Amino acid sequence: MAKSAKTAQITLSDRDQAAIEKLADVASLVASQAQQKKDPTVEIPVRALSNVSFNERKKIIEMGKRTSQRQLFNLTQAKSFMQTLLVSKGTKQLIEQGKTASIRSLYYSLKHKIKGINENTFDEQADCDPIIEDCEVLFNVIREELHLFADPRGSMVGNITIVDKGDEIRCFQMGSGGYSIPSIVEPSVIEFKKCTADFILHVEKGTVWQRFNEDKFWKKHNCILTHGGGQPPRGVRRLLYRMHHELGLPVYCLLDNDPWGYYIYSVIKQGSINLAFESQRMAIPAARFLGIRSIDFERCGLSDDVKIGLTDTDKKRARQVAEYPWFKNKKEWQKEIQKMLENGFKLEVEALTSLDLSYVTEKYVPQRLKEGHFLD
Amino acid sequence: MAKSAKTAQITLSDRDQAAIEKLADVASLVASQAQQKKDPTVEIPVRALSNVSFNERKKIIEMGKRTSQRQLFNLTQAKSFMQTLLVSKGTKQLIEQGKTASIRSLYYSLKHKIKGINENTFDEQADCDPIIEDCEVLFNVIREELHLFADPRGSMVGNITIVDKGDEIRCFQMGSGGYSIPSIVEPSVIEFKKCTADFILHVEKGTVWQRFNEDKFWKKHNCILTHGGGQPPRGVRRLLYRMHHELGLPVYCLLDNDPWGYYIYSVIKQGSINLAFESQRMAIPAARFLGIRSIDFERCGLSDDVKIGLTDTDKKRARQVAEYPWFKNKKEWQKEIQKMLENGFKLEVEALTSLDLSYVTEKYVPQRLKEGHFLD
Repeated sequence: MAKSAKTAQITLSDRDQAAIEKLADVASLVASQAQQKKDPTVEIPVRALSNVSFNERKKIIEMGKRTSQRQLFNLTQAKSFMQTLLVSKGTKQLIEQGKTASIRSLYYSLKHKIKGINENTFDEQADCDPIIEDCEVLFNVIREELHLFADPRGSMVGNITIVDKGDEIRCFQMGSGGYSIPSIVEPSVIEFKKCTADFILHVEKGTVWQRFNEDKFWKKHNCILTHGGGQPPRGVRRLLYRMHHELGLPVYCLLDNDPWGYYIYSVIKQGSINLAFESQRMAIPAARFLGIRSIDFERCGLSDDVKIGLTDTDKKRARQVAEYPWFKNKKEWQKEIQKMLENGFKLEVEALTSLDLSYVTEKYVPQRLKEGHFLD
Repeated sequence: MAKSAKTAQITLSDRDQAAIEKLADVASLVASQAQQKKDPTVEIPVRALSNVSFNERKKIIEMGKRTSQRQLFNLTQAKSFMQTLLVSKGTKQLIEQGKTASIRSLYYSLKHKIKGINENTFDEQADCDPIIEDCEVLFNVIREELHLFADPRGSMVGNITIVDKGDEIRCFQMGSGGYSIPSIVEPSVIEFKKCTADFILHVEKGTVWQRFNEDKFWKKHNCILTHGGGQPPRGVRRLLYRMHHELGLPVYCLLDNDPWGYYIYSVIKQGSINLAFESQRMAIPAARFLGIRSIDFERCGLSDDVKIGLTDTDKKRARQVAEYPWFKNKKEWQKEIQKMLENGFKLEVEALTSLDLSYVTEKYVPQRLKEGHFLD
């Protein structure tokens, strides 16, 4: 990857420096082990449910202290040891070059036949992805700090001015399209210049977002409006996290009334269980669930026409979500999920269209906000 | 939908007026038929492959002149007759309200139990979608002119300034994220204010787009850079069409070397076969295919590591694409597809990463552009 590296002109940010130091520390350790004729070994925190717990006080998922050793001179670990150092080397080069790469590009750039033996460094992307996650926990950084990105998705408009790579973006002058939220939104890329908004409304789908933008909801209610094209990608979650923590903005979520909507809320709120280590950089425990609620069929006076029957998978999924530690002891959430199961149907945000095209922007959300009626 | 219609303040654009007139013409015809005690009937152009032909001179797919009658007093047609008028009414209200709606929202707003009989106007979205297409051909407008939109996807940066609903968007000052391309990009929404770019580079994926944007390709090569998150949605295709035709910009496509990449190019170039009537508003016959080419494995000196084997579906799909009328008589395209089948593997744009992270932006595309080496 570094074949045309021009590192001379690159100025590294403090965070880049910090990441490089963490990478160098591990590399030095491995090198000194080798020099002392010890078995080269790295200690990697265990990324398994068994090493994850919910911190009731901080309200986030945390990794435990269990680690596992990965050794070069161990037949079952030699390959993943090599892969770990390879990903470390690749991301170090990215940082030094001042470039970012998709995880797909990183995989391609690291994949090759090892000289002398008929073996690939990686056979598939699926071999590389868990090693990236290992490196994240090993170096205690998120992948964005290793200059790795995923597919971008999601847009933003509202009363905030940001600076993205030196360009001033006034999100209140972004027309019908909006600002595309990039994959990497770390402070080295995005700074908050001025924000007069009072809160953030995050909606699930781009189509719903367009309704809110067209009705200038963010102008009338002085807020920021985001969507993540379904399950929000990491860039959107991280931006919500930063705006929430750095600008003190409450986050309200408007999602479909189905297990998928609950799950999206859960990931925004607590992070993904499989990636517990990123929760401290991504999770927004104070995020609020505005709706659609299971009581809305009656509360909004909807007709039978908008009901969509729950499938067996939906029911199973709903029961799983009810068991999540952060929902388990919350009466209101248990009632919410139970009510959906009793209803036997789910409701999309668009179902409110049957009342009026702008019901959701003119009545539903304003009323819930005024009454302070939401789940958390 | 019109329960809270506030039509008084809305000023309709010329195009809105034109659409309303077309809708009103058909409605008047139906009404006068009824008054004259004739069977109310609408004539709908046939949207089937049998009524589609490729115009070799204009290089676009065109619908033939065949129409079919849809009558109220015909047991098999009564329901679709009612649905056609219902969608017409719904979209007329949207235009009059100055609002846009997703096709999902339109479906919800029109769905209801018909009084007196136990029958829904529409049972599912799938019942409503073909009726929307019928209305497009009936009124000879595209759905965006009926104020209907789909899920937005895709971003843009580069040397162009547009005005989106009154907001000036300087696409050369959009940081790493870019401008989100909205679903409706008609002149009533988006105007081109200033463009100094020489061409448009359209790439398939957001991850590849980020590499080009990070390397400031559009600045170095004075162009506009777009992506459509895979198969580009209608908004992106329509915007490419408008920039190509109104600003005279050539369109170059950089897509994966697989049947899906060929298909994406085909849709940008000729439109979708099932929606032939929109070709005149969407297709860009002069769009060029820059790569990835089947010869690139040798031409770029790639290693076996980046090969992805063709599946049976891939092979079948490739043979179908080769039979498309606009590829069928082109020697170069036949060679291109034949070569992929002989290779037995496909190549992603990201495969070039194995040479160098910026090979695609610094060598691959600049060389092809310089040499004028592309397929059309």
